[in-house]
Amino acid sequence: MRFRPHFKTHQSAEVGEWFKDFGVGSITVSSLDMAGYFAQNGWKDITVAFPVNIREVDKINQLARTIKLNLLIESLEVVKFLSNHLTSPLQLWLKIDTGYNRTGISWDLWNAILRTVEGISQAPSLTFGGILTHSGHTYKVSTKDAVREIYNDTIFKMKQVKERLISAGIDYVEISIGDTPSCSIMEDFGEVDEVRPGNFVFYDVMQLGIGSCTEEEIAVAVACPVVAKHADRREIVIYGGAVHLSKEFILENDRKIFGKIALPSAIGWGSIIPDCYVSVISQEHGIVTVSETLFSQINVGDIVMVVPVHSCLTANLMRFYNTLQGEKIGTMVSSN
Amino acid sequence: MRFRPHFKTHQSAEVGEWFKDFGVGSITVSSLDMAGYFAQNGWKDITVAFPVNIREVDKINQLARTIKLNLLIESLEVVKFLSNHLTSPLQLWLKIDTGYNRTGISWDLWNAILRTVEGISQAPSLTFGGILTHSGHTYKVSTKDAVREIYNDTIFKMKQVKERLISAGIDYVEISIGDTPSCSIMEDFGEVDEVRPGNFVFYDVMQLGIGSCTEEEIAVAVACPVVAKHADRREIVIYGGAVHLSKEFILENDRKIFGKIALPSAIGWGSIIPDCYVSVISQEHGIVTVSETLFSQINVGDIVMVVPVHSCLTANLMRFYNTLQGEKIGTMVSSN
Repeated sequence: MRFRPHFKTHQSAEVGEWFKDFGVGSITVSSLDMAGYFAQNGWKDITVAFPVNIREVDKINQLARTIKLNLLIESLEVVKFLSNHLTSPLQLWLKIDTGYNRTGISWDLWNAILRTVEGISQAPSLTFGGILTHSGHTYKVSTKDAVREIYNDTIFKMKQVKERLISAGIDYVEISIGDTPSCSIMEDFGEVDEVRPGNFVFYDVMQLGIGSCTEEEIAVAVACPVVAKHADRREIVIYGGAVHLSKEFILENDRKIFGKIALPSAIGWGSIIPDCYVSVISQEHGIVTVSETLFSQINVGDIVMVVPVHSCLTANLMRFYNTLQGEKIGTMVSSN
Repeated sequence: MRFRPHFKTHQSAEVGEWFKDFGVGSITVSSLDMAGYFAQNGWKDITVAFPVNIREVDKINQLARTIKLNLLIESLEVVKFLSNHLTSPLQLWLKIDTGYNRTGISWDLWNAILRTVEGISQAPSLTFGGILTHSGHTYKVSTKDAVREIYNDTIFKMKQVKERLISAGIDYVEISIGDTPSCSIMEDFGEVDEVRPGNFVFYDVMQLGIGSCTEEEIAVAVACPVVAKHADRREIVIYGGAVHLSKEFILENDRKIFGKIALPSAIGWGSIIPDCYVSVISQEHGIVTVSETLFSQINVGDIVMVVPVHSCLTANLMRFYNTLQGEKIGTMVSSN
């Protein structure tokens, strides 16, 4: 099975190098600009896991000349457009909707699927890579069993599509899946040819809630200074808001949680502290509801570590990482 | 009355120049880094409207040497810290909480207020500017009358504090208020000495819902390409997600709205189209629920204009503006 990690989470050429050390040679990104950034940093086989924006055909042609570029389509219309405008060969993957209802042709719309794949097969500049899905509905559940159920349902549907395509004379059809919960929790991927998880590089509070990771596997936190304390509400105010953490939240016991709290330690940060969380967030303010113990321990001028709800959005906003060894690491966003 | 606009919304030196053309000489920002950026661009009187982060005392000293720097405090502890560590004189404002419950000393905690202001008066390097509040609870209402009610309540409380401070021998106390809804809707600011609205420079869907602006006054939109159409759900998919628009939403008839939709026109964009809105958002995908008419008009490869829910967060994420004349304008985020 091919491991094609999604680099939209870290967006960093330097973090990408760590993957090369593990022998990874193919990656996933979410825009042509991101593909261009990683192509400049030596990546030669890149899938843009976003339906083609036909307005970017010049960028597509430019990139397809230098690397093995794989794009996603979900309509015959776009296949025809590409077939008429491409100057370099390209591999296309058909996006299949297996229940997330975001993008892709629904797995049971057989005529639309076949017509589109035949359109690819007939275009000289296009090769058909296979069928690709993203079961994003695994992000909404909170048990491993629920993830397994969605995964099994996804694979059942993808195999149906693959078998029908092969029966219809399409001789090579790979299956690619993407979501971090399935890729983290499943052990046996059976007939899957490719997995494209992204978030696993850092994980976060949301993935912890789903059961994709352990707390020790969460690899990012935002260091936020404490600027005020309010004893009457048992709240501390941090410089750490929506422009740092994003406004992503999870609900726990009907409480909105915009981030969980840990304390800095010699080796990074300690355990997530129970009953302490970012409860309100505005542009740059974070209000942290804390336990009585923590309230008495924390002073203005201290640092608290906010473990983010959604590390992809937080990393995109922060634009830089500091490793625990003190090295500053840039990203695509900080380099342009 | 002094007009001290908050520049955290646009974060752009070039947009700042437009304010200079209107005679504006004093501004508000939300971080010392932002103060530094605008100081480098010729601004000489800057208030950092965020409780002082004492870890940044070196930056404070550096900046206070070159401009008139005004900082916010809300505890005697921080006043004492500054008094012991400052190398240049500084003006401090006391943050008062008039009901938003985010930061500041509650307006009725008289002893804490007096103790803190006396602390400022006793420090040779510090001058007391006055009392400052941000009635952010106006962002949660949806009628002009409700905004007026909060404004009147705010002014009542601020005047009480001012009068008591003057009775206690503090001879000069200004009143500064900040929220865009009050500053947009009120006509007579009475005893207010300073207003610090920020969002009004662009406005957005949230402010439109409050009644702070008309639709024609909204000055930013994000041009998003259409990448897919799903007739069964009457949805279009755009490249425009949480990393462009943020995850801020408003509720209308129990529906989450992450942005409203208009079509590009020769002079920018047309009216907001009823019953069309960004209904689901992930990292880079926006799902737009559209009317039957719009669904048939829009094609893959077209551009739709997304009018943002919260322009401050969207501008921070996009990092660049394109004017209707085609000029590209940078921001603080794009310049470092």
